[in-house]
Amino acid sequence: MSIPEELWRRFQEGDPRALARALTLVESGHPAGRELLKRVRGKGRAKVVGVTGSPGAGKSTLTDRLILEARKRGERVAVLAVDPSSPFSGGAILGDRIRMMRHHQDPGVYIRSMASRGALGGLAGATVAALSLLEAFGFDRIFVETVGVGQSEVDIARVADTTLLVLTPAAGDAVQAFKAGVMEIADVFAVNKFDLPGGERIVQELKSALELSPPRPGGWRPPIHPTVAASGEGVEALFESLEAHHRHLVEHGLLEGHRLERARFEVESVIQEWGRQRTQGAGALVARVARGELTPEEAALALLGPGPEAEEGAL
Amino acid sequence: MSIPEELWRRFQEGDPRALARALTLVESGHPAGRELLKRVRGKGRAKVVGVTGSPGAGKSTLTDRLILEARKRGERVAVLAVDPSSPFSGGAILGDRIRMMRHHQDPGVYIRSMASRGALGGLAGATVAALSLLEAFGFDRIFVETVGVGQSEVDIARVADTTLLVLTPAAGDAVQAFKAGVMEIADVFAVNKFDLPGGERIVQELKSALELSPPRPGGWRPPIHPTVAASGEGVEALFESLEAHHRHLVEHGLLEGHRLERARFEVESVIQEWGRQRTQGAGALVARVARGELTPEEAALALLGPGPEAEEGAL
Repeated sequence: MSIPEELWRRFQEGDPRALARALTLVESGHPAGRELLKRVRGKGRAKVVGVTGSPGAGKSTLTDRLILEARKRGERVAVLAVDPSSPFSGGAILGDRIRMMRHHQDPGVYIRSMASRGALGGLAGATVAALSLLEAFGFDRIFVETVGVGQSEVDIARVADTTLLVLTPAAGDAVQAFKAGVMEIADVFAVNKFDLPGGERIVQELKSALELSPPRPGGWRPPIHPTVAASGEGVEALFESLEAHHRHLVEHGLLEGHRLERARFEVESVIQEWGRQRTQGAGALVARVARGELTPEEAALALLGPGPEAEEGAL
Repeated sequence: MSIPEELWRRFQEGDPRALARALTLVESGHPAGRELLKRVRGKGRAKVVGVTGSPGAGKSTLTDRLILEARKRGERVAVLAVDPSSPFSGGAILGDRIRMMRHHQDPGVYIRSMASRGALGGLAGATVAALSLLEAFGFDRIFVETVGVGQSEVDIARVADTTLLVLTPAAGDAVQAFKAGVMEIADVFAVNKFDLPGGERIVQELKSALELSPPRPGGWRPPIHPTVAASGEGVEALFESLEAHHRHLVEHGLLEGHRLERARFEVESVIQEWGRQRTQGAGALVARVARGELTPEEAALALLGPGPEAEEGAL
């Protein structure tokens, strides 16, 4: 199915309702959405910032403040808020972030919630496709906010240019997060709710942990920013660090690598989704695996075939 | 490559060192591991209990206590502790759980840490393969302990017969967890560290949330158990609920559905891993996606081919 040319015209003219419609087409996996993606690919280029951290760390409030900083500098800003979806209902649960409603009247700010569908805590392929739409629409900066600890951090680090990890002094899981390798993913740290007791301790723990972590590409040293998102304290300096990291990527020729990783993530997501669909539709085959008559590898081969590369002996 | 027959003989005789070696072969993706899996498939049947919840909820201590309960009843028990792995080093970080060392001298208890490799917060396909090995080795009960909130909960619910969600009164993220759909996944709840302030409040919140959640298969009503893992308080009643849920599955003919879902998870994991491997090896193709010359779908098709089912028009 082709895109209604009217929609495409309005999208190119910068009509936010056309953008919203386009995002819905992409998110729902509609053929017109895929056609739209083909047209917009490679158009536009935004600074993509992933914002991640534990539930309750204040990511939404902090993002809200960072939007203001970006707007002060004249940037057009989009936010993709990725909500964990129910594995049963399939829909996003948290809905649009209320706190960001203050930007409702600002045409330079666009906020969209997306479900993480089928990948609770992780990023759906559609989220990354939405990034391409937003870039083509002409946004200068896109914040991708993800909830949860785990897969989403790894995913966001693959998709974003800059990854901001938000911690709090109250977070009893901070040390656990360090251990879990999330430390290695973040480019910039915020210790939010710094007015609570224990902020300095967390900063010191972070510093110690960073000294032990492997060196970053180009010798980047992740800065740690105390912030109080509720009052805006420390947010300007945090924004400057996001900018500094982006300059670092450009100066060291690292930006292209990030874009390749994002494309790789998209391809993997497509394959994963195909695998899920084909496996769901293959009840008899799965039953044979459950009975021990087939190995999972044999079932996967039956579902996918050896693939063109394997046929050429390349695998 | 075939399995050394000596290893296979010792595995069948119940030598724990042979089990350890077999698990390593499976975890490393060694061909002998796959061969081993073919031989053990369908042999043995354990009650598989997934233990999940936020970092710091006390899952390890609670599992430690549940092991004691199982041992009192004469069960042979295995624990698979799934540790998030570093996306960079690829290795497990937390290592073997120190607190479970007390079972070191008990031949009826076997504890193994596994990395979640490539799926931080999620379960690797190798973990599920390890379950088959442990079942074939003759364990009556297997606890699979996963760290983190997010993908691991969904995965564990697909793989385990019974899913235990561990919360604490201190967990500020409890309400967030409810929203994130994790509620719908758990069969049994423990409010651990119940001696801390706020325990009753969490229990009440859980009850309210459960009343709003969709009905469970066979009309199962998930029980909520206050526990203090450190002292063992409430653990016996919790264990009885795990047993009650298993009886419920048997009585309502639901156990086979769980095993089918586990097999489906294994097949999907294999496809996902293949997708990752093929995409990693396809730099030129990925670069074309990044440049907008190919869609992710076109790249995936080039990597996988249309698949045998698609050729038959079945997809």
